[in-house]
Amino acid sequence: MDLPALQHRLRAFAAERAWQPYHTPKNLAMALMVESAELLELFQWLTPEESARLTADPAQRERVADELADVLLYLLQLADHTGIDLHEAVERKLLKNAAKHPAPAAMQEPHSLK
Amino acid sequence: MDLPALQHRLRAFAAERAWQPYHTPKNLAMALMVESAELLELFQWLTPEESARLTADPAQRERVADELADVLLYLLQLADHTGIDLHEAVERKLLKNAAKHPAPAAMQEPHSLK
Amino acid sequence: MDLPALQHRLRAFAAERAWQPYHTPKNLAMALMVESAELLELFQWLTPEESARLTADPAQRERVADELADVLLYLLQLADHTGIDLHEAVERKLLKNAAKHPAPAAMQEPHSLK
Amino acid sequence: MDLPALQHRLRAFAAERAWQPYHTPKNLAMALMVESAELLELFQWLTPEESARLTADPAQRERVADELADVLLYLLQLADHTGIDLHEAVERKLLKNAAKHPAPAAMQEPHSLK
Repeated sequence: MDLPALQHRLRAFAAERAWQPYHTPKNLAMALMVESAELLELFQWLTPEESARLTADPAQRERVADELADVLLYLLQLADHTGIDLHEAVERKLLKNAAKHPAPAAMQEPHSLK
Repeated sequence: MDLPALQHRLRAFAAERAWQPYHTPKNLAMALMVESAELLELFQWLTPEESARLTADPAQRERVADELADVLLYLLQLADHTGIDLHEAVERKLLKNAAKHPAPAAMQEPHSLK
Repeated sequence: MDLPALQHRLRAFAAERAWQPYHTPKNLAMALMVESAELLELFQWLTPEESARLTADPAQRERVADELADVLLYLLQLADHTGIDLHEAVERKLLKNAAKHPAPAAMQEPHSLK
Repeated sequence: MDLPALQHRLRAFAAERAWQPYHTPKNLAMALMVESAELLELFQWLTPEESARLTADPAQRERVADELADVLLYLLQLADHTGIDLHEAVERKLLKNAAKHPAPAAMQEPHSLK
């Protein structure tokens, strides 16, 4: 996915609708949170097992897909408005996560052969 | 950003740590929400103007970048575990958004020339 | 619990610290959300059964109690700053809930005897 | 507000609808979060000033009141299901908050006279 191109499209979409004054980082972070809650709501009362089967149903699948897209679209806009390169941010965070949660030795072995 | 490759790495990372049983769609949606709140927390008490300047400070910039990455990483895992193609989901949602929020006529003109 | 007295104490606490300019309804709603996420985080990776046993552990019990209190304290402040009477709001919402989700007839019977 | 009596009514309401299996602490914490997001959504795109005036409009006031009630109702149920006394929790948290954020000396003076 070409994230910078997508961010450019989202900026144009907002500009055409004169939405820029609303798109402060603070408001975009709120919107991201509200969309995350709409996504969570789809799984709210399900058992873990039911949650794993939810998207086998096409109508539910489209709802989950739509909410995932909404979260991603606000995430891209927030990164854009705060000048953060998501690719760099992800790679640095993955290094931090690996340092914070070292893989158990036995599991690392096959990977250390690479 | 090569999202499928990243999703593959996240699956391997979770498998090495035996985290798969925890990674139900329901739990991943909760984790996504919790990370969204940690992101929001950085902007919580700021004025709109202060929120726009926050990432000019390098330390704050890294915090925002880390939280954005955390949200994106859980989003990718949730899409992976629910079998949703994010590229398709985003394109379909952008069409829905355009239908729901038509651009004002005067603003559409330059675009109708394309 | 004497909610108006508690709201009065919270207003005095904020005033002593010159926090009033930060306590817009918008910011209080964000703070409420952030605290709700901190509460949710305590249950995030637990199975439903583990979540039911969490507060049997005294240290976890105190953490849950603290987060519940944080949510309630922001809720009280938001109600105060928006001029909403929580008692009235709750009673009206309970009527709406009862209308929206009528109890099954068989279950209502014992209650209709009261 | 008589919180224990309200908790008792909520338990009866859930029991009449056979909702108890859904009311694990984990699910109630999610529901609390989802309702907090619905509350936040009402303030999402407003300026701080607009957020302060929102409930001057009766229709908006009812929406805010309903969402505040929803959050409170799930909070009460979560406290009930985890065996936490909210009154105690609030008093202990207020002490912790006062220790964490001491009031500035000049502001404390009038209070120390009491």
